Amino acid sequence: MRYSLLAGGKRIRPVLALATAEALGHELDDLLPLAAAIELIHTYSLIHDDLPAMDDDQLRRGQPTCHVAFGEDVAILAGDGLFAEAMRLVAERQTGPPDRVLAALGQLVDAAGVGGMVGGQYLDVTEADDLDAAGLRRIHELKTGRLIAASVECVLLWTGMDPAVTIAYRRFAAELGVLFQIVDDILDVTGDEAALGKPQGSDERQGKRTYVSVFGLERARELAAEAHAKARAALAETGGRTETLERITDYILTRQT
Amino acid sequence: MRYSLLAGGKRIRPVLALATAEALGHELDDLLPLAAAIELIHTYSLIHDDLPAMDDDQLRRGQPTCHVAFGEDVAILAGDGLFAEAMRLVAERQTGPPDRVLAALGQLVDAAGVGGMVGGQYLDVTEADDLDAAGLRRIHELKTGRLIAASVECVLLWTGMDPAVTIAYRRFAAELGVLFQIVDDILDVTGDEAALGKPQGSDERQGKRTYVSVFGLERARELAAEAHAKARAALAETGGRTETLERITDYILTRQT
Repeated sequence: MRYSLLAGGKRIRPVLALATAEALGHELDDLLPLAAAIELIHTYSLIHDDLPAMDDDQLRRGQPTCHVAFGEDVAILAGDGLFAEAMRLVAERQTGPPDRVLAALGQLVDAAGVGGMVGGQYLDVTEADDLDAAGLRRIHELKTGRLIAASVECVLLWTGMDPAVTIAYRRFAAELGVLFQIVDDILDVTGDEAALGKPQGSDERQGKRTYVSVFGLERARELAAEAHAKARAALAETGGRTETLERITDYILTRQT
Repeated sequence: MRYSLLAGGKRIRPVLALATAEALGHELDDLLPLAAAIELIHTYSLIHDDLPAMDDDQLRRGQPTCHVAFGEDVAILAGDGLFAEAMRLVAERQTGPPDRVLAALGQLVDAAGVGGMVGGQYLDVTEADDLDAAGLRRIHELKTGRLIAASVECVLLWTGMDPAVTIAYRRFAAELGVLFQIVDDILDVTGDEAALGKPQGSDERQGKRTYVSVFGLERARELAAEAHAKARAALAETGGRTETLERITDYILTRQT
């Protein structure tokens, strides 16, 4: 669990949660258990996705994947354990009104379960070969977009703000999820292997349909720019202290890893 | 997920949760989401334990195991999805004061995570070959006993009763977990294969240390009788309406499957 969790990575999801708390005027320290739980859930999903029965990846974050380092049995359990620990962090350590903590936990679980990550990965391993562009977008929305969006939305729920007030944040979160995935697909083709920490071109070799394979590199870059513009526009409408969220949004567009 | 969840099984854990609610004077309907969540967690653990990288079992509850029926990738995801759905049931459907729902969820997650099922399975796959009797008991306590006990304890937490009042229930829960595992080990040697729904003698073939292999069949039966007597004595001290819990305790001792 430590090996995979502390291997580095961009920590985009917890940073996004904390930046959302900042935008809404909350102390970052108050949200640390919830933010950490999101990174645990993300790491659990990476460990399971890398397994031989799934994507069979050997390298992650510049080091051997969990199952290569510790065996398949331990890797399955490391993922299972990280998910349980994530829930424990929220249930036992997250302060705030219990009804809002429960709502935030429910949001994370929705994003992690069959209506999110698990459902997306299921479609990916069972149906990904004959998908059109809409089907592709749906898989990525479930696998990646839901947890990115939930990193913002669980904080909104924790604050207990009226949904009408947070509608612009929700639009921002949805666009950010799309942006993140398009850039991920572009980097798989154009990225530097050493910087990425995983083999370049692995999506193509595995015959995965990506934004690049479906739309071409040029159009994928345009779509990324559009998603970025929409996310920034949504942020501008929130009226919050969104400087950090703006910088994260710019970073997600221009990142090289 | 449905295939494994609805394959039958004894449903001992949710029945135990509901019987605890009954003993404390609560309506059973009020506890259904929490009780169902426990069975989802149990089923998730069976699916992952049966995987080729773990115990590599082919038969469970009289039918092919999940990975035999649907492939290893889908089986891993079915387990992951059941765990997430269990959390969702508690977070979104369990009624009652939110602080107590959170406490009950925390109890389940403790029992499912590294301090329980996942930790026990980890020890089982990495250290089970050179264990003494105390180490064996510890593994079983983590793998099986914790969730059995949590099926009682999460209901105690949900009721919000003073821990001092529920101390006899906690002792009952701990003894019941031990009893369950001893009988499981005995049935693996003496049980009827058709009734068990899984191959008889599988523990022995896998070289697992069990209560029977460590203590012999005769002594294992005595230990089961002792655990049963202690569990019944604890129940008698609770002062609750424990008729159903008593019958479950007797059933766990005398069950043939």
